[in-house]
Amino acid sequence: MNSKILLLAESIRKFLRRNMVPNLKNLINKAHPSDIAAAIEILKPFNREKLFKFMIEHNIEKAAEVLIELEEHLIKSILDLFDDETTAAILKLLSTDDAVAILDYIDDEEKKEKILQLIHDSEKVEEQLLYQDETAGRIMTTDFFSLNHNLTVKEAIEKLHQLEEKAEMVFYLYLVDDNQRLTGVMSLRQLLLSNPDAKLKEVMQKDIISVRVDTDQEEVARLVSQYDLLAIPVVDHDGKLVGIITVDDVIDIIKEEAAEDIYRLAGTSEEEILYKGHPFKIAKIRLPWLLPAFAGTFVVASLLDLISVKFSYFAIFVVFMPMINAAAGNIGIQSSTIMARELAVNEMEGSIWKEVFSTQFRVGVIIGILYALIAFTFSFILAKPVHLPKLIVSISVGIAMFIAIIISSVYGSFLPIFLKKMGVDPAVATGPFVAASNDILGTIIYFSVAYNIVHLLQ
Amino acid sequence: MNSKILLLAESIRKFLRRNMVPNLKNLINKAHPSDIAAAIEILKPFNREKLFKFMIEHNIEKAAEVLIELEEHLIKSILDLFDDETTAAILKLLSTDDAVAILDYIDDEEKKEKILQLIHDSEKVEEQLLYQDETAGRIMTTDFFSLNHNLTVKEAIEKLHQLEEKAEMVFYLYLVDDNQRLTGVMSLRQLLLSNPDAKLKEVMQKDIISVRVDTDQEEVARLVSQYDLLAIPVVDHDGKLVGIITVDDVIDIIKEEAAEDIYRLAGTSEEEILYKGHPFKIAKIRLPWLLPAFAGTFVVASLLDLISVKFSYFAIFVVFMPMINAAAGNIGIQSSTIMARELAVNEMEGSIWKEVFSTQFRVGVIIGILYALIAFTFSFILAKPVHLPKLIVSISVGIAMFIAIIISSVYGSFLPIFLKKMGVDPAVATGPFVAASNDILGTIIYFSVAYNIVHLLQ
Repeated sequence: MNSKILLLAESIRKFLRRNMVPNLKNLINKAHPSDIAAAIEILKPFNREKLFKFMIEHNIEKAAEVLIELEEHLIKSILDLFDDETTAAILKLLSTDDAVAILDYIDDEEKKEKILQLIHDSEKVEEQLLYQDETAGRIMTTDFFSLNHNLTVKEAIEKLHQLEEKAEMVFYLYLVDDNQRLTGVMSLRQLLLSNPDAKLKEVMQKDIISVRVDTDQEEVARLVSQYDLLAIPVVDHDGKLVGIITVDDVIDIIKEEAAEDIYRLAGTSEEEILYKGHPFKIAKIRLPWLLPAFAGTFVVASLLDLISVKFSYFAIFVVFMPMINAAAGNIGIQSSTIMARELAVNEMEGSIWKEVFSTQFRVGVIIGILYALIAFTFSFILAKPVHLPKLIVSISVGIAMFIAIIISSVYGSFLPIFLKKMGVDPAVATGPFVAASNDILGTIIYFSVAYNIVHLLQ
Repeated sequence: MNSKILLLAESIRKFLRRNMVPNLKNLINKAHPSDIAAAIEILKPFNREKLFKFMIEHNIEKAAEVLIELEEHLIKSILDLFDDETTAAILKLLSTDDAVAILDYIDDEEKKEKILQLIHDSEKVEEQLLYQDETAGRIMTTDFFSLNHNLTVKEAIEKLHQLEEKAEMVFYLYLVDDNQRLTGVMSLRQLLLSNPDAKLKEVMQKDIISVRVDTDQEEVARLVSQYDLLAIPVVDHDGKLVGIITVDDVIDIIKEEAAEDIYRLAGTSEEEILYKGHPFKIAKIRLPWLLPAFAGTFVVASLLDLISVKFSYFAIFVVFMPMINAAAGNIGIQSSTIMARELAVNEMEGSIWKEVFSTQFRVGVIIGILYALIAFTFSFILAKPVHLPKLIVSISVGIAMFIAIIISSVYGSFLPIFLKKMGVDPAVATGPFVAASNDILGTIIYFSVAYNIVHLLQ
């Protein structure tokens, strides 16, 4: 938190406490919405409420701009303070994409319906709510600026002068034919540098990168980032221009998707943050990830039980099992992560797979030899076997370590590919469930190797 | 990989094989550099080489544009193909930030020096190489467009007309005083809508968000994303405007930092991808993460050895240990991840910490009760104890599970805060090393609880 935000929060707190209306009004008018939003994050709930009531009374535009900058859980709690009229009044001030985003936070369908009725000219918002979540249609703004491609450059500049403020960041001009179909694009700079009497369709760029209303938001982000765009136009199934998605929204998508990956790797989800103070809801999010992993450990326990009962002279090997499982598990996670990321970045061809596999295998061999030597030495020093010669125990531990590491390294690389083929996001490849399957595999390898070596050497 | 890229790669392959020069020239001229780069990723190395030699001969501008779009490991391998003159010729065609980025891939200092000498007007590049890695100064482009704030709007538009093509995406005008100090900013749209005779300093926006040459790139990304900017100006220690960073570079930073976090969580780094086919180099990257974790498992093994030798009637508990360690470990990772992300997003105040801790504690209690019941039931069914009554074993396993889960949940939330206080990136909080400390903690809790309960109940 930088000092600017801390200072802003402190001033808001003071002005609210002393009821210094003109000062607070002045502060709110001058501060950047996103700074006010950051300050609100550190205010106590009763001050947040007071501030929002104040903003709605004195500067409702700012209230709307601040609301959209807040984090999800705060938006929800602020919305609870408003009656339907206030919510509608705020939504009217927002661009359609932001209005749609806010409406999405209202779970009560009846309330949502009522608010929609209160918004004058709400058809656009209603229409947009029909698009699937996380598609271009849902996240686009319909407040964009387009011109007929038959206009001249001079006419276009005149139109720009008449433009209302609300249209989002104009730096590309999107050009359409008489049927509103997208036909070209040009930058403001190109407009400025073109012959005033030229028709737009003569100077515009006809090779346009666009998405359809049903394009997934991840694909939108990929295109904007790959082609270094500031905005991407969205067309419907007839090629009509219906909205644009700007680069700032794309940054939010990229951040959101990255956070999602990280939560998945740990076996939970971002929703957890929304449920601060609701441990039952959090437990409900976590358990689907935990329970399959937990079931996996029963298999390991049953194996250990079988071994300790049937082959009691094997008990000494149990001591070294956590060592093997942890080492193999960690290598497996490294391989899976590298592979999952490569899969996310590019789709590979057959020959590259072979290269990756062979690399991972050789890495496994190198680390395996090192680990086997360490495991051999450590178990030779520690082991006080009753039934078996010390040397046989430590040779078995070393060899089992070597094999377990190679297999984990390769299994770890294979898993994300397999998951992707099955239609599962490879990002789950290092979650708790996979850790459990690694443990089961490790235990089976370890005891099979130990059993065979003991029988071979004895 | 979309079909467009596959088709492009296929055409390149065909044209190269049949030596169809005019077709290939035409294809290269028309295709977007970033599409060619994507196609190159799936070409075989010898075709990559042939294509680059072809582009250098027939369209060196395109070669330069494609080079900068490639992934790091490919840039390195392509650079190896060029002599110093070719490299210098390509660097001359790039903007300074891109030239700096490419030069950074050349490890040989002597070669770098030679190339710099070959670049006419290389002072800018040389100067920029002096800034620290991952700072604004290093990643900015110096090919920006600025105007003296004493010019009129009309004069500014005239200057824009004379502008050379190379200056990066002009959509903001940066305004400076006679000493090149940044004094204001305006958008092209504002310029277009202002009175032609007004002085720029009368119409410009004076409240500018800028960064200094030594600002960390993460902070740059945070500012651009928070204030929805398309570019951010970079000033030196005297407030002189020296460069700009555009939003497309910020997207790259955000992606890079997200990837870095994910690699850290798994205990490895992105560099691994650069060393495909070099297993020794990969092993060297992984071992610093693996070895401390491996050492941790020796502690667990020694504890188990101690227990199995000194308290042989305890052996039955070893069977259920992997179950407890895995469950506690997974919950701990969930808590750490949530906390590490919250730390990354906002600096919290004391009262919020307490709230988070109490939530995590209560989540631990809920999951702990559930797991304790399952563990009790499972161990009661499975256990065939020799020295201890069945019920005592399963009660001990259940209680130990309950305590281990609560402690892991709280320990997991505490760890990222502790790491941050120690100046370590909290993103490492779920890496292999932490997993090992979780295992040691789990083992100690488990056997202490079991020991005490056995002695209490017997």
